[in-house]
Amino acid sequence: METVNILIEALPYIKKFHHKKVMIKYGGHAMIDSDAMSSTARDTVLLKYVGMEPMVVHGGGPEISRSMSKLGKEPKFIGGLRITDSETMDIVKMVLVGKINTDIVSKVCLHGGKGIGISGKDNQLIKANKKAPHVMVDNSTGEEITVDLGLVGEIESVNTEIMEMLAENNYIPIVSPIGVDEVGNTLNLNADTVAGDIAAKMEAEKLIILTDVPGILEDPKDPETLIKKVKVDEIKDLIDNGIVKDGMIPKVLTCVNAVENGVKSAHIIDGRIKHSVLLEIFTTKGIGTMITK
Amino acid sequence: METVNILIEALPYIKKFHHKKVMIKYGGHAMIDSDAMSSTARDTVLLKYVGMEPMVVHGGGPEISRSMSKLGKEPKFIGGLRITDSETMDIVKMVLVGKINTDIVSKVCLHGGKGIGISGKDNQLIKANKKAPHVMVDNSTGEEITVDLGLVGEIESVNTEIMEMLAENNYIPIVSPIGVDEVGNTLNLNADTVAGDIAAKMEAEKLIILTDVPGILEDPKDPETLIKKVKVDEIKDLIDNGIVKDGMIPKVLTCVNAVENGVKSAHIIDGRIKHSVLLEIFTTKGIGTMITK
Amino acid sequence: METVNILIEALPYIKKFHHKKVMIKYGGHAMIDSDAMSSTARDTVLLKYVGMEPMVVHGGGPEISRSMSKLGKEPKFIGGLRITDSETMDIVKMVLVGKINTDIVSKVCLHGGKGIGISGKDNQLIKANKKAPHVMVDNSTGEEITVDLGLVGEIESVNTEIMEMLAENNYIPIVSPIGVDEVGNTLNLNADTVAGDIAAKMEAEKLIILTDVPGILEDPKDPETLIKKVKVDEIKDLIDNGIVKDGMIPKVLTCVNAVENGVKSAHIIDGRIKHSVLLEIFTTKGIGTMITK
Amino acid sequence: METVNILIEALPYIKKFHHKKVMIKYGGHAMIDSDAMSSTARDTVLLKYVGMEPMVVHGGGPEISRSMSKLGKEPKFIGGLRITDSETMDIVKMVLVGKINTDIVSKVCLHGGKGIGISGKDNQLIKANKKAPHVMVDNSTGEEITVDLGLVGEIESVNTEIMEMLAENNYIPIVSPIGVDEVGNTLNLNADTVAGDIAAKMEAEKLIILTDVPGILEDPKDPETLIKKVKVDEIKDLIDNGIVKDGMIPKVLTCVNAVENGVKSAHIIDGRIKHSVLLEIFTTKGIGTMITK
Amino acid sequence: METVNILIEALPYIKKFHHKKVMIKYGGHAMIDSDAMSSTARDTVLLKYVGMEPMVVHGGGPEISRSMSKLGKEPKFIGGLRITDSETMDIVKMVLVGKINTDIVSKVCLHGGKGIGISGKDNQLIKANKKAPHVMVDNSTGEEITVDLGLVGEIESVNTEIMEMLAENNYIPIVSPIGVDEVGNTLNLNADTVAGDIAAKMEAEKLIILTDVPGILEDPKDPETLIKKVKVDEIKDLIDNGIVKDGMIPKVLTCVNAVENGVKSAHIIDGRIKHSVLLEIFTTKGIGTMITK
Amino acid sequence: METVNILIEALPYIKKFHHKKVMIKYGGHAMIDSDAMSSTARDTVLLKYVGMEPMVVHGGGPEISRSMSKLGKEPKFIGGLRITDSETMDIVKMVLVGKINTDIVSKVCLHGGKGIGISGKDNQLIKANKKAPHVMVDNSTGEEITVDLGLVGEIESVNTEIMEMLAENNYIPIVSPIGVDEVGNTLNLNADTVAGDIAAKMEAEKLIILTDVPGILEDPKDPETLIKKVKVDEIKDLIDNGIVKDGMIPKVLTCVNAVENGVKSAHIIDGRIKHSVLLEIFTTKGIGTMITK
Repeated sequence: METVNILIEALPYIKKFHHKKVMIKYGGHAMIDSDAMSSTARDTVLLKYVGMEPMVVHGGGPEISRSMSKLGKEPKFIGGLRITDSETMDIVKMVLVGKINTDIVSKVCLHGGKGIGISGKDNQLIKANKKAPHVMVDNSTGEEITVDLGLVGEIESVNTEIMEMLAENNYIPIVSPIGVDEVGNTLNLNADTVAGDIAAKMEAEKLIILTDVPGILEDPKDPETLIKKVKVDEIKDLIDNGIVKDGMIPKVLTCVNAVENGVKSAHIIDGRIKHSVLLEIFTTKGIGTMITK
Repeated sequence: METVNILIEALPYIKKFHHKKVMIKYGGHAMIDSDAMSSTARDTVLLKYVGMEPMVVHGGGPEISRSMSKLGKEPKFIGGLRITDSETMDIVKMVLVGKINTDIVSKVCLHGGKGIGISGKDNQLIKANKKAPHVMVDNSTGEEITVDLGLVGEIESVNTEIMEMLAENNYIPIVSPIGVDEVGNTLNLNADTVAGDIAAKMEAEKLIILTDVPGILEDPKDPETLIKKVKVDEIKDLIDNGIVKDGMIPKVLTCVNAVENGVKSAHIIDGRIKHSVLLEIFTTKGIGTMITK
Repeated sequence: METVNILIEALPYIKKFHHKKVMIKYGGHAMIDSDAMSSTARDTVLLKYVGMEPMVVHGGGPEISRSMSKLGKEPKFIGGLRITDSETMDIVKMVLVGKINTDIVSKVCLHGGKGIGISGKDNQLIKANKKAPHVMVDNSTGEEITVDLGLVGEIESVNTEIMEMLAENNYIPIVSPIGVDEVGNTLNLNADTVAGDIAAKMEAEKLIILTDVPGILEDPKDPETLIKKVKVDEIKDLIDNGIVKDGMIPKVLTCVNAVENGVKSAHIIDGRIKHSVLLEIFTTKGIGTMITK
Repeated sequence: METVNILIEALPYIKKFHHKKVMIKYGGHAMIDSDAMSSTARDTVLLKYVGMEPMVVHGGGPEISRSMSKLGKEPKFIGGLRITDSETMDIVKMVLVGKINTDIVSKVCLHGGKGIGISGKDNQLIKANKKAPHVMVDNSTGEEITVDLGLVGEIESVNTEIMEMLAENNYIPIVSPIGVDEVGNTLNLNADTVAGDIAAKMEAEKLIILTDVPGILEDPKDPETLIKKVKVDEIKDLIDNGIVKDGMIPKVLTCVNAVENGVKSAHIIDGRIKHSVLLEIFTTKGIGTMITK
Repeated sequence: METVNILIEALPYIKKFHHKKVMIKYGGHAMIDSDAMSSTARDTVLLKYVGMEPMVVHGGGPEISRSMSKLGKEPKFIGGLRITDSETMDIVKMVLVGKINTDIVSKVCLHGGKGIGISGKDNQLIKANKKAPHVMVDNSTGEEITVDLGLVGEIESVNTEIMEMLAENNYIPIVSPIGVDEVGNTLNLNADTVAGDIAAKMEAEKLIILTDVPGILEDPKDPETLIKKVKVDEIKDLIDNGIVKDGMIPKVLTCVNAVENGVKSAHIIDGRIKHSVLLEIFTTKGIGTMITK
Repeated sequence: METVNILIEALPYIKKFHHKKVMIKYGGHAMIDSDAMSSTARDTVLLKYVGMEPMVVHGGGPEISRSMSKLGKEPKFIGGLRITDSETMDIVKMVLVGKINTDIVSKVCLHGGKGIGISGKDNQLIKANKKAPHVMVDNSTGEEITVDLGLVGEIESVNTEIMEMLAENNYIPIVSPIGVDEVGNTLNLNADTVAGDIAAKMEAEKLIILTDVPGILEDPKDPETLIKKVKVDEIKDLIDNGIVKDGMIPKVLTCVNAVENGVKSAHIIDGRIKHSVLLEIFTTKGIGTMITK
């Protein structure tokens, strides 16, 4: 009986988002183990069955670092970006495309979705350029130091031809965040940005980023201070006064960019909470921070 | 949270019946007032939104009798069938097509469904022949008495062209149970039979008949004796030993006929229970009697 | 031989109106009895077979009044509009949708057309608002008297989705002139206005209104004074100088409105003449008054 | 008024042949001059406008002979077949494809049809083989004489791909009766046979052959003895007892063959009568001889 | 091995022109005999098989003059235009449509293309008007002499409906350069102009005109002085200083007109060279003169 | 000029294989380095551009072994099959899907093809079961020893839904040879078998297996003894008399199986020869061994 009452309660949300595209960025806890991944995949498939059109972009930083360590290579970061030499790029591709992506595809298919894995290289879905070197200042000498990031890329353009075909044929695409430059080199991309840019190009209704925090907190130590809704033009203040800081800054800016380019709302939610995606979509209050125009 | 857990629990049923047609016969309590009708309509719309293809046939006996009384005409029945003279047929059409059907369409549309009312006359959806006269034996004399039933029909054929068009275009058809003979006369039809025959012709997954009893009961006074599942070849015994009797016989035979002509399962359920349709579809146990091959 | 010569003569008109939509408002004598209705329906079907796309809106005032009388209710009008309480609205629906509409559908199907009955409630084809109360002045006192018209509506918008589907699938739609407000109430509408608004929204070539007069007459007593053609900008003068008056005014204004919103020509013709629709379309002179831009 | 009554009378025939294919063989008087051709073309276009799908094959013997004479070549026939050397074949092509076909196309287009001329060579519509030599017996010597017919062909197969495309796109195809052998030679074909074979392959409802006689006559001198209907299995007798003889034999056998291969009825009618095609289709009696199974 | 290396070398051109339309004007040597025509047709078919969409317009002046002579009619020209009386027009049609066109169709089909012949009369592909009379000055008297050209036309409009249908269905259309005026008269048209106008209307990538000269030569006696590329705005100078003169002027102006109306490049090439069309398309240098914006 | 002559020579082959599917198994030398892979990819793209529909399955054994070694894992084989524990399976997936597949996709896209990488897990393209353990006999003791192969699979079924979608949309699919069992485990599959089974299911015209030998040699030391054509029913003899032996046996049996299940011809060719695929398809003699029914 309860089942039924709740379906009835969910009906308005189901109606509201019928045939709407939803881009979900899998990250952090939601991918921590096979069970978490399975649960996230099941939620994604459910969205499909109640009429939405989910798309997935996944990350994979920790697993890449683990694989590098196994191979005796030390992961190096600068300004939050992984320095990616050619050998590292091979590991990145293998872990993202060969391991994480195929694992998600497996889960999605097991739960009844038509999962298909693609990467930014397929039909040159994501064209990218090598990122400019990172510039730092040596505090002691005041000298500028320029660090080449290697095969790290910035998105130049998204060719959604494959995505359109998959949407029309009821597939759930799982996208690995790598791109290709004009001579065919593979470039390592930021997964949040990939999710945001594809969401915008596909005119998604929602971009949902799964993280390991509750959302934007006024006081990072107090989950009660969660900001539930924020407009894109209020974001600058939140950054200026330090409420949004560190690793949250690029995530929030990705959201702002997506919303400014056509996505109706972007959501930063806590992937550690079970069924967080569904809670965000099917309840009035939601559970994380929603960013809108 | 509960909402979400329950959606997750409903997922297997949603998957199982994705893109499957479900014919629902509205009758009895489910149509007793505006609220009951609204609730039934909302459940029907929900089926559509989670991917099924609901179709509706409605009855309307009590309302027809009320209208006749208002006009000073006494309703007459013989063998459970309404004797339908030409004037009565006009009242039947006006009540079924003009009142009940438009009311259901209203509710379905208000809940977000694309409701559309049709009758067996539209594009000659249901071709029917006048039913043979009813023959009775006068107990005192032993004489046979033949009673002409007037404009009461038996279905000859169902032309699903309209139904197919509506299904392809995502409408929820609401069908009034009248038919047309070859010279254009309107004939009064049994609504259960109309539901069953259209369900069979449309290769529906389920035929669900809303009644005012819990289903088939071994002991009609004890709801605890509900028979949850029965095979079509067990029905004869149930009738022979009097467990299925009176008005339940034609309903059950309609179910048998539907199942033998392609419907996967037929359900007799209690329309007095709120959300009975959803309970029957989305719970393992169901709430009424299911008849299968 | 004659048959053939005449087909040859009709060819230019058949070509001219090939694949063009024609909205016909059935009213008055054309619906007076089963034979008249059958004849009008056959003409409509013929239009379909020679390549046009006919649509029908029907009225039904006299029949509604008769049904009310039978039920002991006295029909009341004010300013030409029926005061429609809730009980009256039920009778209106029953007569229009349940009786007249199904009768026309029967005739159309018998003559080989794919007739289908719909009302303004199906998929909320016609959204309407309750009409403002009628304001009169009491001559003796000079006081303003406000009379609530009840469930009488004014068209807010026409959603032609169903009409488009039916046109694509070669159906002849028969539309009952009722609408629905935003909470699902049924509203009584003027049939001429419904015909005109749907014609405009569907970009019909012609709107043909069947009446019981020959058209606009300079001298209402002399049929020889029929005005065969008139431009929309000449209408005001005709009203001002009293040539168009009384019940003809709203009909003519409906025509003007239709023509100003995309219909190529509107025709007021005499439904008492046999095959008047065909005579108007397939002869050079026509038989009624044509209103164009 | 008459116009309209007659349209109404034609309605049953229009309905009966709606969307049915009709192959018309233009020959004899129907092509004798520009006016006759124009009239025949207009009738053909009318069929299209009232919903049929006409196709045309034309002959052209007299015109070919005239052109040969102008060029100082004497036309020679044997057993009714034109002996066709290479130079003659060029004249045949030029007259049929370049002159007669383009003239018919002009007329059809002028009357509002989408005429398009094709020949059996287009996309190898008609593959043909060289006909075996004609064998005669020299009465005086009793010797067999073998006469090579030159580029005269027998139809091997019909590839209706073009015809299907044209039908789907509402064109009226005008076909010149020439074929192509496997090395690309053009072969002269019998126009009646081409009409019959294409009609059969396209599953036409009717094959109508325009000739200069009223049909099959019991007594060739008495038009009153016209046989209006005949079954294919009665034809042999008609030939055996000499009622069908000479040039009528191949025409009748073409009809038999067409009917046995899927055409519903074949008609031999008098092209000298104005509008003969329409008279045959739109009147109960018809005007010529109808051959059916 | 060579075969394969060359296919590899051709790949960039094949890619570049994939699914691009190419209009080829057959003229001069390329049509001089059956072998030349066969070779040109095979090249055209090859374009189709490697993914382009070739269209053909053919000329036929010399053959028309030959046929006129056979019939004892003397061909007359004025200002490069054939004076075309009614009898001449018949010969023009017969030769172009009945002979040359069917011959090309044969060759195209033999090489595996889906050739289909059409003329400007089919579905009124090319509407034309009678050309104004030619005006000359009598040198001796200074008087103006006006010469009526007869049935010579100027293109008024191109209706590409047939061309679009044929392109979608993978046919190779072979077009005869005649047009039709508004009353159905056939008019004789310049084949280069027809090719150019259809190319522009169909948004062709290339217009290739096969001639009997190498292209535009700075010194007409020295093939080494071939101008390989020229812009449309440089053409005027070439004409003014006499490099482009006589019969080359209208060809060049046709190219200019085509390029200014949407064709990417127009090519005047030497049809006497074997496979000239392929050499122009599949080699970097090409062999003739290319005119671009 | 040569270019053009050779295109003309290739035309019959291009026509013959137009719109035909060709499955190419990339293996051995053809994938040995970036240049070899690029060349093979370019040949594949060329097939697409001249109208064929190429599909690719790739192997990757040596690269997998190299990656295992880097990670300190020793590759173990038994009966030619890699013993695949869970950790090895991860490496297999990462190398095949993450590295080799993405590299091929890059090359195909760079040469202008719409390359897209998929694996047997996408939408459960390849369902597989765990292979039965390998059974050996200990020569010294005569005892049977059973060795579990781990995650090595046998194909149960191929679901070509994705392949059909990609073919319709002009993609070149690159398939990694892994499968999925019914609980979602990834299984290691033989790449030749995957190529053969997909080719059969897709009704490919050709299956081409790139190896490092010239084909089937009568005398393995003498390339001059190459068997150019062999029928499937002659294969048993070749195996029985030892001409086909060792690693060639499964390849040949894969070919036999493919041909018996609908592939027109299977080819074992030498991937060390440049453009071997094109040489096999576009030359009369071919360069390897062709197996047909």
